[in-house]
Amino acid sequence: MLPEAVLSYLSQHRDRHLDQLMELLRLPSVANVSAEPDGCSQAAEWLARCAGGLGMDARVVATAGKPAVLATAHVGADRPTVLIYAHYDVQPPEPLDKWDSPPFAPQVRDGCLWARGASDDKGQLFAHLMAIEAWQRAGGGLPVNVKCFFEGEEEIGSPNVEPFVAEHRDELSADAAVISDSAFFADGVPSITYSLRGLVYLELTVTGPAVDIHSGTHGGAVANPINALARILAAAHDGEGRVTLPGFYDDVTELTQDERRDWALLGFDERAYAASLGLDELGGGERACGALERRWARPTLDCNGIVGGYTAAGSKTIIPARASAKLSMRLVPNQDPDRVVAGFREFLAGHVPPGVEASFAVRARARPVMLDRHSPAMAAARRACAEAFGREPVMVRCGASVPVAEVFQQVLALDAVVMGFGLPDDNLHSPNEHFRLEHLWRGSAAAAALMHNLLTARGDSP
Amino acid sequence: MLPEAVLSYLSQHRDRHLDQLMELLRLPSVANVSAEPDGCSQAAEWLARCAGGLGMDARVVATAGKPAVLATAHVGADRPTVLIYAHYDVQPPEPLDKWDSPPFAPQVRDGCLWARGASDDKGQLFAHLMAIEAWQRAGGGLPVNVKCFFEGEEEIGSPNVEPFVAEHRDELSADAAVISDSAFFADGVPSITYSLRGLVYLELTVTGPAVDIHSGTHGGAVANPINALARILAAAHDGEGRVTLPGFYDDVTELTQDERRDWALLGFDERAYAASLGLDELGGGERACGALERRWARPTLDCNGIVGGYTAAGSKTIIPARASAKLSMRLVPNQDPDRVVAGFREFLAGHVPPGVEASFAVRARARPVMLDRHSPAMAAARRACAEAFGREPVMVRCGASVPVAEVFQQVLALDAVVMGFGLPDDNLHSPNEHFRLEHLWRGSAAAAALMHNLLTARGDSP
Repeated sequence: MLPEAVLSYLSQHRDRHLDQLMELLRLPSVANVSAEPDGCSQAAEWLARCAGGLGMDARVVATAGKPAVLATAHVGADRPTVLIYAHYDVQPPEPLDKWDSPPFAPQVRDGCLWARGASDDKGQLFAHLMAIEAWQRAGGGLPVNVKCFFEGEEEIGSPNVEPFVAEHRDELSADAAVISDSAFFADGVPSITYSLRGLVYLELTVTGPAVDIHSGTHGGAVANPINALARILAAAHDGEGRVTLPGFYDDVTELTQDERRDWALLGFDERAYAASLGLDELGGGERACGALERRWARPTLDCNGIVGGYTAAGSKTIIPARASAKLSMRLVPNQDPDRVVAGFREFLAGHVPPGVEASFAVRARARPVMLDRHSPAMAAARRACAEAFGREPVMVRCGASVPVAEVFQQVLALDAVVMGFGLPDDNLHSPNEHFRLEHLWRGSAAAAALMHNLLTARGDSP
Repeated sequence: MLPEAVLSYLSQHRDRHLDQLMELLRLPSVANVSAEPDGCSQAAEWLARCAGGLGMDARVVATAGKPAVLATAHVGADRPTVLIYAHYDVQPPEPLDKWDSPPFAPQVRDGCLWARGASDDKGQLFAHLMAIEAWQRAGGGLPVNVKCFFEGEEEIGSPNVEPFVAEHRDELSADAAVISDSAFFADGVPSITYSLRGLVYLELTVTGPAVDIHSGTHGGAVANPINALARILAAAHDGEGRVTLPGFYDDVTELTQDERRDWALLGFDERAYAASLGLDELGGGERACGALERRWARPTLDCNGIVGGYTAAGSKTIIPARASAKLSMRLVPNQDPDRVVAGFREFLAGHVPPGVEASFAVRARARPVMLDRHSPAMAAARRACAEAFGREPVMVRCGASVPVAEVFQQVLALDAVVMGFGLPDDNLHSPNEHFRLEHLWRGSAAAAALMHNLLTARGDSP
């Protein structure tokens, strides 16, 4: 059990912790923006200062993209070491007009903290810093060696995380790793995630005439890049909702009977889920699979953005010179992003109509991951969740991608524990993102308890 | 023949005329913009002042949309009356970064006047005002009664032109009408247009989740509005490039053998045409038809703009709440826009995938038109073109739409002559629109000659 002193320290410092987290949330750390002042650098500096203030050896480390933060606190060679990962970068806040309060001006309302990144992932990240502080100042020091790795490019697919981890392999080596960038299965149902989907993100561009041309004078005589792009996108799914890329499903691992049984017990309500998204019916995905399987264990091809021709108010009669789409494919164990990219290339070659040209650029690749459900760290995390949230967690998969999980597995030979404190309706990636304050408080207790449990769990490991 | 005095007056006043036209081109009269100051009202006021200065009874007349300009000069009940139509509104100038000089800062370069609206249609409009001035000041007065009708909404499909013409039926009544809003078939080949395509312009919107949602967490479980929109658009054409809307081709008039023979004589070079648009091959349209037939005599369905989800730089992983497309269908004689809209409605109802909703709003409807090729006014226009440009014009169709042509036919029982002074590479609706100065000078001579020829042509009419 977590020492009472640690718990009451966390209780007593809620106001200041909230102020600190709001400071961090004010920094617009959108990873896909290269503007100055760079919100990512600011956030990285802020985190290094904060960790340094907790007695950690902390520094900002440059990468090929946005900087990372490394912070360590060594208490003894006889203690196990835990590696804590979270990311400080956030999704772009657009569309701005859909926010009830500005995305980078955090507000407390209705028991929640509202801001871009509140739940994904600054709030979850900060819960760990709160836990470290409580142990240091009230628990007699950290029970385990702690290494923090805070990334600044998770929301753009972690393009530099694999070389970074490889380069800092020794510095990041640990006995256990925890990733907090996920959510409860449902309100009141703490959850530990044992599988995440991978990702291929690409931009597809179709070009036609050298410039936008008159759609009356030329319409019908020349191929239209938007119509052509629509044709290509439509061809990427068949009538059953299956992706038509060559070999797309070849490597997909089917669900085990165990998983089917476990998931059935979760009582997932498709109708309530649809309603929570403002939908009468779900649609989408493979007709042959249930919604939970489609979210967690089936690969996808989704268009995340499309633009071409005239998009302002009113009408303009042109055949545009170009049209483009941002596409993401979520991959499931045991798909390989490189093979999927090759399949896309082959698909595209067969679907470009005459009169246009098509090309694509891959923006991100992340491999899917399946984590050990039975490690000592997993057992420690389950107990920590139960202590902090008063209920034994369920074991779930997640449809999202956290590329570092698979990188830890490959490069550090470490199966992380994915223990998240968000809720399904936190509006991740959407306007009005928020994080329930109760989950910040209990999340920090879970983070503190995990360290304690890792100490005692050490003996369980082989 | 046109009196030498009129011709030399036009010659002597070129510099001032150019200055005046540049004044008009500076006014950003984009009809689809509702911003203040309203460039359309400014242009209408400018034109009324200009016509008033030529001794015409001129006024700006409000419509349900952008104002029109009416100007009349009555010389005698024994003279025929010509109705001159052109439009002062222009296409939106976007994309601005593709212009070599700003769209509303006209420049003379390489013997051309460069500005949005230079060719379409302020330059062609102004040629008629130059002709009126020359007759008034050097030709002993106008040879015929003249009525000018300058519209301000042609580029958005003339939504108010039919009620306007009906309301001003008596004021607009005439013996002949000339429309200058078209181009030569080729450089050196003056052309008179006897058929224009009609138009249906609509905006199609597909909606899904209430807000943009995380494409990892939810991808595969819910229908994606962009993917759905692409599917709908793709279904609108079959593999042969034919539009699949129910009944779409039912009313299409096939080309006559006469027209096929005449068009073959035009020597249209598909390869050179493709190259002029920066294309290796044309693609697009119905595989079974040649490019000239596809441009002039076959209906189309083109996407003029599409937007949905995240379109800024970098990546964002969302399933968007909505996606929309601007669509235009060009119609040929004897298609009816209302029947085409009904066909689109029926098509759409059969193609909305589960999990999304689709709706559309019609922004413009214009009927196609087939004009009398053998009227006295047509003969007068042919002679005027030959006099001014030194070569007998060819008779052509045009793929674009000038809705007023059919409205004159229906409401005023008047088959207009469509005599235009542009060139195929004037970049209408594109960046770097321009108008060759030689065509402005000769166009004003053709406009002046037409008035003269209408006087003598009067006896030909039945």
